[in-house]
Amino acid sequence: MAGVPGRPAADGVDPETITAYVAQQWPDARPTVCHEVSGRHAVVSSPVDPRSIRPGGFVSGPSLFGLADLALWFATFGAIGLEAMALTSELSIRFVRPAIGDTLWARADLSSVGRKNVVGSVVIWTDDPDRPTAVCQGTYVVPPRATETEEHREHRER
Amino acid sequence: MAGVPGRPAADGVDPETITAYVAQQWPDARPTVCHEVSGRHAVVSSPVDPRSIRPGGFVSGPSLFGLADLALWFATFGAIGLEAMALTSELSIRFVRPAIGDTLWARADLSSVGRKNVVGSVVIWTDDPDRPTAVCQGTYVVPPRATETEEHREHRER
Amino acid sequence: MAGVPGRPAADGVDPETITAYVAQQWPDARPTVCHEVSGRHAVVSSPVDPRSIRPGGFVSGPSLFGLADLALWFATFGAIGLEAMALTSELSIRFVRPAIGDTLWARADLSSVGRKNVVGSVVIWTDDPDRPTAVCQGTYVVPPRATETEEHREHRER
Amino acid sequence: MAGVPGRPAADGVDPETITAYVAQQWPDARPTVCHEVSGRHAVVSSPVDPRSIRPGGFVSGPSLFGLADLALWFATFGAIGLEAMALTSELSIRFVRPAIGDTLWARADLSSVGRKNVVGSVVIWTDDPDRPTAVCQGTYVVPPRATETEEHREHRER
Repeated sequence: MAGVPGRPAADGVDPETITAYVAQQWPDARPTVCHEVSGRHAVVSSPVDPRSIRPGGFVSGPSLFGLADLALWFATFGAIGLEAMALTSELSIRFVRPAIGDTLWARADLSSVGRKNVVGSVVIWTDDPDRPTAVCQGTYVVPPRATETEEHREHRER
Repeated sequence: MAGVPGRPAADGVDPETITAYVAQQWPDARPTVCHEVSGRHAVVSSPVDPRSIRPGGFVSGPSLFGLADLALWFATFGAIGLEAMALTSELSIRFVRPAIGDTLWARADLSSVGRKNVVGSVVIWTDDPDRPTAVCQGTYVVPPRATETEEHREHRER
Repeated sequence: MAGVPGRPAADGVDPETITAYVAQQWPDARPTVCHEVSGRHAVVSSPVDPRSIRPGGFVSGPSLFGLADLALWFATFGAIGLEAMALTSELSIRFVRPAIGDTLWARADLSSVGRKNVVGSVVIWTDDPDRPTAVCQGTYVVPPRATETEEHREHRER
Repeated sequence: MAGVPGRPAADGVDPETITAYVAQQWPDARPTVCHEVSGRHAVVSSPVDPRSIRPGGFVSGPSLFGLADLALWFATFGAIGLEAMALTSELSIRFVRPAIGDTLWARADLSSVGRKNVVGSVVIWTDDPDRPTAVCQGTYVVPPRATETEEHREHRER
């Protein structure tokens, strides 16, 4: 996005740690894999759950929403660290083409990383990222950390 | 909502037909029940899927999104009939309080019923509708019907 | 909206005080009039600014957005009082029909009034509220009040 | 954005033609300048209208919304040509920091360019694009062209 230079992910955050963290938190969920993460983006994939297929062979909207939410969460990990229990505040999604395929891909790009909120956009596709099935934008709220000093917060905001 | 008088549901649409229709379309889904439907609203409930509980005991965001999407779809049935294969075009959701409970409730109110689009708002709660867990607004696109004449379309718009 | 009983507006808030307050804050703005306000809704009107007419005779999108934002702000006054300097956090708008006319009307209904956030929906129309030109939903953030005790905050949330 | 390679703007579309086109369509509007345009993005700037300054010195939300809407429109020109009378269908905006300054900047990036709809994200800032004041996402609807053959439409979609 505009004016956002490449930034390394937060300390200790890489695709493997994110994938393992989520598998541990939700052992029953579909195996979601983090392929890329930086301080401003994440790329993830997830096999399509057969139960989420709708008549016509399309992946359901809530499944796409769920992956978008996850991709934005992973990008938030990249920006501010795994320990930050950020929560989705709001998310708006546009369904632009039918989702047909075995694997869903999503890329989240952060446009704003502030002290209290992270805002980013997500593109979801099955076989061609230039022909997405859904496009989202949303906000994660970052709870204040009890142990954090004002100085740290200022630093994080920059 | 503003200026929208009570309107009867479309011909042949009542809570029982909607509940039966959805159970038939998605036999694997959680049993969602339609309690009320008119030409401008629907009220639904769904038992919480234990797999959708997140750490802290909260129902996951994608589950709330899924129910909101369904409630808006049911209200669209009420406005234009069961046979209309309306598709979600876009939906924005705000998560306002943690969702804790065994049953999710949702009420969708339509603000605009046009020839091509239906727009409505949804409130989701567990035990108190005045303290919702999520609030949504979104658009369903109504595909043109091959057998429909211009005259019918005009009629439907009114 | 669902389960929201009629509630009186906050102390000292009525249509006249809101109209006067806004006229004083933005003396250069188009005269916006508050017609109704309660603890959960507001109805406003504003004459169309000729500069906001676009080719075809349509009122511009940003003008509709501006009135929606204002209507939601007025409803927030009704819920928590005039002195609360609530700020728009996010707003999503759907343009559903061309806006043609001399006067814009908007009705905002609040779905959630919490300690920190107020969420509501807005319908905008020119001559028929059942055929709106735009439909919105958004969030106002309520800043913490320095003089407020925890007890008061709790009370306000209910 | 993900997987979107650089693409040239549509025939006859460059920053100068867009700037001149808009100045001609809205002679009364603030002079908005298009600085960059391609088949997938646009960068614009606009001087802040003093009437849009709110108490505290902040640029009003509707002004930011207006520029976002314009930036997305310009990017749509880049994708499908100046003659396409695309209309905003829906737009969601997040206000992330106070907007203080004399000039507003906006960059729109398109995530999906389809036959009927264009979806993109916009970042708005005053002095630092990495610390935006607002972040948006929205949809423009592209009306069918009477003179266009199916073949042309297919081509445009790719």
